[in-house]
Amino acid sequence: MTETRQITLEDYPAGMPAPEHFGHRTVDLPDPQDGEVLIRVLWMSVDPYMRGRMRPNVKSYIPPFQKGEPLDGGAVGQVIKSKDPKFAEGDFVVGFAGGWRDHHVGPASAYTKVDPNLAPLSAYLGVLGMPGLTAWVGLSQIIKPKEGEVLYVSGAAGAVGSLACQLGKHYGMTVMGSAGSAEKVEWLEKEAGVDKAFNYKEHDVVSLTKAISEIAPKGVDGYFENVGGMQLEAILNTVAFGGRMAFCGMISGYNNDKPEPGPSNLINIVGRGVMIQGFIVSNYMNLVPQFAAEVAPLLAAGKVKFEETIYEGLDKAPDAFIGLFRGENFGKAVVKIAEPA
Amino acid sequence: MTETRQITLEDYPAGMPAPEHFGHRTVDLPDPQDGEVLIRVLWMSVDPYMRGRMRPNVKSYIPPFQKGEPLDGGAVGQVIKSKDPKFAEGDFVVGFAGGWRDHHVGPASAYTKVDPNLAPLSAYLGVLGMPGLTAWVGLSQIIKPKEGEVLYVSGAAGAVGSLACQLGKHYGMTVMGSAGSAEKVEWLEKEAGVDKAFNYKEHDVVSLTKAISEIAPKGVDGYFENVGGMQLEAILNTVAFGGRMAFCGMISGYNNDKPEPGPSNLINIVGRGVMIQGFIVSNYMNLVPQFAAEVAPLLAAGKVKFEETIYEGLDKAPDAFIGLFRGENFGKAVVKIAEPA
Repeated sequence: MTETRQITLEDYPAGMPAPEHFGHRTVDLPDPQDGEVLIRVLWMSVDPYMRGRMRPNVKSYIPPFQKGEPLDGGAVGQVIKSKDPKFAEGDFVVGFAGGWRDHHVGPASAYTKVDPNLAPLSAYLGVLGMPGLTAWVGLSQIIKPKEGEVLYVSGAAGAVGSLACQLGKHYGMTVMGSAGSAEKVEWLEKEAGVDKAFNYKEHDVVSLTKAISEIAPKGVDGYFENVGGMQLEAILNTVAFGGRMAFCGMISGYNNDKPEPGPSNLINIVGRGVMIQGFIVSNYMNLVPQFAAEVAPLLAAGKVKFEETIYEGLDKAPDAFIGLFRGENFGKAVVKIAEPA
Repeated sequence: MTETRQITLEDYPAGMPAPEHFGHRTVDLPDPQDGEVLIRVLWMSVDPYMRGRMRPNVKSYIPPFQKGEPLDGGAVGQVIKSKDPKFAEGDFVVGFAGGWRDHHVGPASAYTKVDPNLAPLSAYLGVLGMPGLTAWVGLSQIIKPKEGEVLYVSGAAGAVGSLACQLGKHYGMTVMGSAGSAEKVEWLEKEAGVDKAFNYKEHDVVSLTKAISEIAPKGVDGYFENVGGMQLEAILNTVAFGGRMAFCGMISGYNNDKPEPGPSNLINIVGRGVMIQGFIVSNYMNLVPQFAAEVAPLLAAGKVKFEETIYEGLDKAPDAFIGLFRGENFGKAVVKIAEPA
């Protein structure tokens, strides 16, 4: 019998999530049955999409979290006991279940074996994991860059955005990105190779439209949308004919008590022949091999920079999550729960 | 020397266009030069997109009309004098130039010969012309229907919308459509074969969302957008996963003095993996043969119903145009300028 400590959702946040919305409990885990594994969780991921699961009665692609019940999400773990031939004791695995807790029993099919020598284990929650796949899908499958085109990435210093920017450069694009602090803007321009980074807090629609037009007088060809709101409006003002937009998220609205109106210039979608594709990465899992084949070598060659904000200990998970919406995290936010055995 | 009477734009309308924004003048036409034709205009088209050309300094895919200068647009005419081997005297032609006037000299390359025995001449401005091509492109090239899917067409009783609805039925879809009068709703359900038509004036977002969900409990797969505003918001509430939206126009906003905010639920584009493609039909002219091959037989077999609102005489052109935004026209609005010789 193994105990697990779990972080629970005590209440649905009305606006910004706060520590009092979270609780914890310790329960006994059943032994793994045939086809299952028991893992010790080493790293867990916090991601903006989880906010969407903290609303009751919302029809979405994943069911809402339940009040008083544990949260869940992506995690890297080490197999303690395996009742599936796919894994041996000691194997390192990554999967979409097992976060927000320190031990987990679940189907082996939810996990993939990872190699700790290829990259740090936490990278499998970031650049080599779901956020990395998300960035790559948005660029390679939706925006489909042509060399010399212009890309704008909102939320550019985040886990997804920072890779989207660097993939844009890899594909030969002029890349603009936005973030919410001078430090992030500097990192984007100096480390990530972004041609021009904006601190969106210093702009309104008019000034951002003007600033984008100066960099891209012929218009923006690709837009990787993580934020929504004012930036989407500025992009709709500056998008080139035939522009493509990958809608990955709109974090600016996730904690609104009541929904904010959208941009007033959607008509430009018509006149400029714009294509928008919304996507959730779990529908592109069949492309993981193609993603890994393209991105892992870039990482190994040091051509992709990635930052992590590491929170130490399971009890810090709520802070890590709340930090996503306060702009406190840099790059991928992860929680370190245990050392490998 | 031939005289032509032309309708001019006397002033840029600030909101709804009114008779005082239009004027007229009579000028002498030059003789056609090599490669040109002189036509007598028989029918002219009024289309919502023309409103977009009545704004100065707007960056768009076609230049704005100039103050004091004649308007222009699609027309059917008869060749009076031809300096191009493509056409003989007496031929009937359709083209994107020659509207808003009774005679016109221009390049023969702007015109295509049409057969008055295949369909009434005015149909080449409607179901067999630009609006028909627009409907067909939105359905066949963007929405790409699968049998059994659900389609919603806003502006369903208009020139484009009414064909979009009927093509939807032809492709085996369940079709909903909206219009602005009880008479149009009745025509859609009784004549055009639409499964459920709504009078949008009797709905708000909440009631329309509910009404759509009752017809399409699994969601709307295809949306043909002519109107924008409240209906787009209701569709974003009810769109199925993987829904496709053809953005053809947003007439609800064309006469706004200042732009109205967009819908507050754009985030559903992400979670439901929605694809939106804005389009202007002039970029799909290479598909005219495919369009004609598919739609002309449907028309000949009486499988496509189309309505026309006919205004008699060139001087009625401004009324015809204004009627587009007052919801006064049924089906395709055309102006009859002269009888064939």
